[in-house]
Amino acid sequence: MKQSRYFLKTSKTTPADDLSINAKLLEQGGFVQKVLAGVYDFLPLGLRVLQKIENIVRGEMDKIGNEMFMPVLHPKENWEKTGRWSGLDVLFKIKSQHGNEYALGPTHEEIVTPAAQAIINSYKDLPLAVYQIQTKFRDEPRAKSGLLRGREFRMKDLYSFHATAEDLDEYYNKTAMPAYEAVYKRLGLDALLTEASGGTFSKYSHEYQVETENGEDTIYVCEKCGLAKNKEIFEEGAKCTNCGKTSWRETKGCEVGNIFKLQDKYSKAFNLQYTAQDGSKNIVLMGCYGLGTSRVMGVIVEKFHDSKGIIWPEAVAPFKVHLLALNGAEKESGKIYESLLNSGIEVLYDDREVSAGAKFADSDLIGIPYRVLVSAKTLDKQSVEFKKRNETEAKLVNISDLASYIGAQNQKQ
Amino acid sequence: MKQSRYFLKTSKTTPADDLSINAKLLEQGGFVQKVLAGVYDFLPLGLRVLQKIENIVRGEMDKIGNEMFMPVLHPKENWEKTGRWSGLDVLFKIKSQHGNEYALGPTHEEIVTPAAQAIINSYKDLPLAVYQIQTKFRDEPRAKSGLLRGREFRMKDLYSFHATAEDLDEYYNKTAMPAYEAVYKRLGLDALLTEASGGTFSKYSHEYQVETENGEDTIYVCEKCGLAKNKEIFEEGAKCTNCGKTSWRETKGCEVGNIFKLQDKYSKAFNLQYTAQDGSKNIVLMGCYGLGTSRVMGVIVEKFHDSKGIIWPEAVAPFKVHLLALNGAEKESGKIYESLLNSGIEVLYDDREVSAGAKFADSDLIGIPYRVLVSAKTLDKQSVEFKKRNETEAKLVNISDLASYIGAQNQKQ
Repeated sequence: MKQSRYFLKTSKTTPADDLSINAKLLEQGGFVQKVLAGVYDFLPLGLRVLQKIENIVRGEMDKIGNEMFMPVLHPKENWEKTGRWSGLDVLFKIKSQHGNEYALGPTHEEIVTPAAQAIINSYKDLPLAVYQIQTKFRDEPRAKSGLLRGREFRMKDLYSFHATAEDLDEYYNKTAMPAYEAVYKRLGLDALLTEASGGTFSKYSHEYQVETENGEDTIYVCEKCGLAKNKEIFEEGAKCTNCGKTSWRETKGCEVGNIFKLQDKYSKAFNLQYTAQDGSKNIVLMGCYGLGTSRVMGVIVEKFHDSKGIIWPEAVAPFKVHLLALNGAEKESGKIYESLLNSGIEVLYDDREVSAGAKFADSDLIGIPYRVLVSAKTLDKQSVEFKKRNETEAKLVNISDLASYIGAQNQKQ
Repeated sequence: MKQSRYFLKTSKTTPADDLSINAKLLEQGGFVQKVLAGVYDFLPLGLRVLQKIENIVRGEMDKIGNEMFMPVLHPKENWEKTGRWSGLDVLFKIKSQHGNEYALGPTHEEIVTPAAQAIINSYKDLPLAVYQIQTKFRDEPRAKSGLLRGREFRMKDLYSFHATAEDLDEYYNKTAMPAYEAVYKRLGLDALLTEASGGTFSKYSHEYQVETENGEDTIYVCEKCGLAKNKEIFEEGAKCTNCGKTSWRETKGCEVGNIFKLQDKYSKAFNLQYTAQDGSKNIVLMGCYGLGTSRVMGVIVEKFHDSKGIIWPEAVAPFKVHLLALNGAEKESGKIYESLLNSGIEVLYDDREVSAGAKFADSDLIGIPYRVLVSAKTLDKQSVEFKKRNETEAKLVNISDLASYIGAQNQKQ
C-alpha cells in the first residue's frame, strides 16, 4: 500500500480526555479516530489489525463451533423474559417511531437461546456450539480507556449447548479452554487463566488476564502454577484450586476473555428443552465464552509499545514491512515495493514527500515489525537497511536477497 | 461439515407474515431465522453465503479504495449539521441513560466526511476513496420482503473524495462503474445500469437493477443498448442517454446497488476543504457508492430457485457439494467426505439418520450446486451418483475420480 494514497494521517495531538496509552498511540498512529467517547472509526490501518485478530479468533473457534451472525436489534420481550430488560444497567434501549422497543445487544443469550429452540429437539442434537463475531453495545457512564472500555465494541461470543452437566464441564475444560489458549498464543499474548466471580448461577467464571502496568483488575497469581484469582473472589490464605499452594503474587491485569457456565439460567427462561433417550423432556445446559476483539487490540498496545510508539506482534501487525524511501531513492524504492508485493509480502510503502525525520518518527509510531530503508547511501552497495521495530541495530541486506531475508525472519518467530 | 453436528434445521413451516420467495426459502432452508420483522439471525448456512458475497465485494472494492470500519452509533450533532436528524424519516434515534442522543447509522456520510477532515489537507491527498462493509439500520414502518427490505441489514458503502468535478466524473464512470460490473459478474447476476432520480444534489443517480418477477421497481430497458431508466424519471418518448434510441421495454427490477455524485452537499456541511496548488481553499467533492450485501442474497434467491428450493450460483453457494449418505452406505460416505475435504472441496455431509426422501428434499431446498449420493446400489460399481442442482440427470462417477471430476466442473463455469 502506498502511503501517499492511503486513508491515513498520523498526528502529534494527544487525545484531550483519554489518558490511556492505547487511545493515545492508536489515535496518533492513525489506527482509529474517536467519533464519540467509547465509539471509534477503525481507519484502514486499524481495521487491518482488527481483522487479523478476528481471523485468528475465527480460525480457532471454527474448530469448536459453527459461526453464525446475530442482530444488533433485540426485541424487548426477549430481555424481559430473562429479567435483564430492567436488570442490566448498561443496556441501550431504543423505541422506534412505530412504537416497538428494542435493546442494542450487549451480549446475545437472549437471541441465541430462542434460535437454538428451532435446532435442538433431541439428545442426538447435543452437544452443539455456535459463535459470532459482532459489534456490541453498552451504555457506559464513562468511556475513557480507548479500546478497553467502549460503548460500541467488537466481540466474539460463543455459546454451547449440552444435555448433561458432565458434558458442559467437558466442553468447558477440554474444548473451550484449549481453544482460548491457542488464540492467545497466536496473538502473542501471555494470558493467565483467572478464577473470577461466577455471578448468580455458577461458583466461578474464568477470565483470561494479561499482566499490564495500567491494568484495571487486581489479580493474584499462584507462584507455583500460574493460575490466578481475581481480587473480587480472593481471600487471604486461599489455596490454589489447581496445585494447593498458598503463595500468591499481586499484580495488575487486563481481562481479554471471560467464560461462564450459564447452566440452565437462559434455557429455563426460554424453555429450551431436549428429549432424552428415555423420552423425558429436560432443560438444555449452556455455557458462554466471550472474547473482546477490539479490547484485545487495545491490550496489545498497552503491552507492546515504547516511548516512540507501538511494537505490533507479527501475527496482528497491519503490514509486515514498512518501506521508507529517502530522497533520491524513489525510483529504486518503487521497484523494491513491487518486488516485495510480488513475493506476497504485506508492505506499507512510505512514498510521501516528507522529511526523513518525519518518516522515521511515523514508522516508529505505527510499529510495523520490519523497517526497510532505501537511501542513496546504501544503494551504491545494492543494499537497503533492514531494522526490526523491537531492535536498535540495522543490518545491510542486498536488494536481491531482501524478500527471502524477510521470509526467513518470519520463520524464526 | 457434518450435518448432524451443524446448527441447522430445515422447516416445512412458511413464514406467517411474509409472502416473499426469499423469506420463505431462506427461512425454510435454515439460512436465516427471523428475530423480528426485518431483523434476522444469519444461521451458519446463511452466514456462509453472506460472507462469500461480502468477500467478492471486498475483493473488487480493494482495487478502488481502502477498507475502513465506521460505527453504528452516530452523534446527533453530525446529523443536525446535514439537516438529516429531522429530515430522514427512517432514522433510528436513541437516547442514552446519560442524556446523549445518537442515530443508528443508515448510511455514513455524517461519519466519513468528518473522518476525512483529519486525512485530507492538500490537493496532493486527492483523489481518495474509502469503503466499509457494515450493518445499517432503517426504522421502516413495514418490513415484509425478507432480506430485500430490512430494519437491520448489511451494506457496502464506498465514499470518494475529489478536487474537481472532472475527477469525480472520471472516478464515477471509469473506476466505480467497472468495479460494480465486476462484482455482479462474479456474483452471477445480470445487473442493468439504470438511471434514477438524483435527489436534490445531482441530475441522476445510477442504480443497478436485476430483472425479477416480483421486483419492487418498474424499469424501462433500452431495446438497443440495455441501459435502463427507473420509472421515477422515465418520460414517454424519452431518448436513451447512451445510444439515442427511443424503443423501451417495461419490466420489473430489484435494486442491487445505487451510486450517487454527492458533489459538495456533505463536504460543505462539514467544511471539508483542501488547499489547491495555488494556495486557495476549496470544498472537496464527493461520490457515494452503495451495495446491499444481504439484499443481494435475497435477490439471488428471488432470481435462482424452482418449486423445490434455491439454486445457488457457484460463487456464493454455502458449500460446493452436498454429500448424501443413504442407508448402508455410511462407512463409505465418511471416507468420501474426508477425501473431498482433503482435496479442498467444501462439503456439507448429510450423515443424519433420516429417510432418503427427507435428504433429497432438504438437498433441493438448500440448493448446493453439486449433489453426491452414496448408496449401496452404486457402491457395488465403486461409484456414486453426481447430480447438479440445476439439472435433472444424474451421472455415475467412479469414487476414485470424484474430486477431480468436481474440480473439472468448477473450471467449466
